[in-house]
Amino acid sequence: MSKVYNFSAGPAVLPHEVLLEAQGEMLDWHGSGMSVMEMSHRGKEFMEIIHQAEQDLRSLMNIPSNYRVLFLQGGASMQFSMVPLNLLGDRASVDVVNTGHWSKLAIKEARRYAGVNVVASSEDRNFTYVPASETWQRDPQAAYLHFTSNETIGGVQFSTFPEPEGEIPLVCDMSSDFLSREIDVSRFGLIYAGAQKNIGPSGLTLVIVREDLLDRAQPQIPTMMSYRVHADADSMYNTPATYPIYIAGLVFKWLKAQGGVRAMEARNEEKAGLLYHAIEQSGGFYHCPVEVAFRSRMNVVFRLRDESLEEAFVAGARAAGLVQLKGHRAVGGMRASIYNAMPLEGVKALVSYMLEFARQHG
Amino acid sequence: MSKVYNFSAGPAVLPHEVLLEAQGEMLDWHGSGMSVMEMSHRGKEFMEIIHQAEQDLRSLMNIPSNYRVLFLQGGASMQFSMVPLNLLGDRASVDVVNTGHWSKLAIKEARRYAGVNVVASSEDRNFTYVPASETWQRDPQAAYLHFTSNETIGGVQFSTFPEPEGEIPLVCDMSSDFLSREIDVSRFGLIYAGAQKNIGPSGLTLVIVREDLLDRAQPQIPTMMSYRVHADADSMYNTPATYPIYIAGLVFKWLKAQGGVRAMEARNEEKAGLLYHAIEQSGGFYHCPVEVAFRSRMNVVFRLRDESLEEAFVAGARAAGLVQLKGHRAVGGMRASIYNAMPLEGVKALVSYMLEFARQHG
Repeated sequence: MSKVYNFSAGPAVLPHEVLLEAQGEMLDWHGSGMSVMEMSHRGKEFMEIIHQAEQDLRSLMNIPSNYRVLFLQGGASMQFSMVPLNLLGDRASVDVVNTGHWSKLAIKEARRYAGVNVVASSEDRNFTYVPASETWQRDPQAAYLHFTSNETIGGVQFSTFPEPEGEIPLVCDMSSDFLSREIDVSRFGLIYAGAQKNIGPSGLTLVIVREDLLDRAQPQIPTMMSYRVHADADSMYNTPATYPIYIAGLVFKWLKAQGGVRAMEARNEEKAGLLYHAIEQSGGFYHCPVEVAFRSRMNVVFRLRDESLEEAFVAGARAAGLVQLKGHRAVGGMRASIYNAMPLEGVKALVSYMLEFARQHG
Repeated sequence: MSKVYNFSAGPAVLPHEVLLEAQGEMLDWHGSGMSVMEMSHRGKEFMEIIHQAEQDLRSLMNIPSNYRVLFLQGGASMQFSMVPLNLLGDRASVDVVNTGHWSKLAIKEARRYAGVNVVASSEDRNFTYVPASETWQRDPQAAYLHFTSNETIGGVQFSTFPEPEGEIPLVCDMSSDFLSREIDVSRFGLIYAGAQKNIGPSGLTLVIVREDLLDRAQPQIPTMMSYRVHADADSMYNTPATYPIYIAGLVFKWLKAQGGVRAMEARNEEKAGLLYHAIEQSGGFYHCPVEVAFRSRMNVVFRLRDESLEEAFVAGARAAGLVQLKGHRAVGGMRASIYNAMPLEGVKALVSYMLEFARQHG
């Protein structure tokens, strides 16, 4: 097998151009005689790499100057602890919206350190929608409001973002739709994202945090969990994940060459539109459980009317070079993750396969 | 510049064969059609990679079956918190040997969670030796005894390991001499090592822990800091640093092909011997501040009698393709890090340069 379209939910497909560039300079980065993996993180070569990556990200997302960008480790799971330990401050509790698997994990971990007020939940209809923000029971004393902009497993995405209320910062787990659409960073207090969907390889976590939030940490916080420590050291308090940062930098450069986030957003709309259209037009052979307004443009979740055909669907897809289409084991069904790096041709190939499979088995 | 010898203390030189192999399969790992960076961590391809890596490491180090191998993130700095949070149990304090920069950071962090009894310190002579274990003031009630087998900055290495006392486990930060010499794992309760010296790229931390130590964690420990959580999930509680794990696996395979740890130890002795010999024979032009018995075979620290020549030494070395020789900013001077992947030829080239430089400026 020499070429596949990889619909994995993460770690996920990377731009072909990025892999080619990384391959080309694997043994010698820009005439340094070293692989990026071999460079001291404090040497001038790697400092150039990380500075350029941050600058490109700032430009792509239009990040205001009073926000810090941190290159951390541990994934979103580590942020589930770091967010409350850093931002609870002198408040007793935090507000959280529960829209699925990742929200629930964030809630569970926050409860170890703080009261957690679930302002709204879509569990009543199996996490197939986002509760309207007018119905949320917000606490005016909350330390922050946390939500998950895209639920990777449920395939549910916020179509609009909540309004900040008073001084209560919005905190968003943007792991699976980071850089996929234009957002106004200034409306958020903190955004975090594991890299392994839209940014680069796993092992890297990006945090974008407003500077005034850096000094609310609990006194007993482990040093490596303090945003202030990492911010003061420009993400060099200890050795960062240098190679993942380098690949992320190549992805940012690629995104700029593609026309930036606005262009990606248009492409993502087109790709998701093709897939949802094919599902809707299948006469019920396929169906998507998620309400139309909240269907994710990143993770297209669908089922077959006849579940006994699922195995044949996956096997046939694999034979056609369309891999990693099985839904998460927690929910079953199918899932096509179509992040920025999934080319339109990959989605078209999947749609063709789906039509053909439905024709044969319908 | 196309070929250099890289004496960086970490991230550091990797085996040329490993980089070539990674380059060759960057776009397509073993016919999967995917880069390792793009693979789901739960897919069969990556499961094969991580299982093979663990198996090879177990075989290289002869790790007993009652020890778990964990592939974590956050480096040794994260372990400075995780070790006390997991191993303090119902004890009030921990024993620590202070042999330099990294010991001191481990002590500082442990003090956030536990009483810390410094059983011995070599600070009286500027961290140029390891205090004899007969002089250590050990506490029979300590939760564990922590030491740093090799101080990367000071260039000081334990030549023998302390004896375990009673039931008190030995905990060792082996970041900079892991896999460089034969050790008896069964004498330790826990060994940890950041990858970026002898294992692979930064962003990966290995922990080898005896199973009976997994259930002593403080109740308020963040989930991502619990060894028990990571052990129960076979390092897949969340997405691990997949690409660094893959490279580490290639390094382990390379080590086996080189003859294993015993062969590496002999090579490391030879390499360090050449450098220290050159220093000793320079008639005082170069000198090593570390006592002979504790000179590191991984990080050879030396000074020039005439410190005003240091800049010329570094510039000339760079011109000769010998890079990253400057000592850590905390101590100054020179440092040649000669981990497993530094070929003998690199050390010989450095020795030749040192002799020539001394001849010209002596």
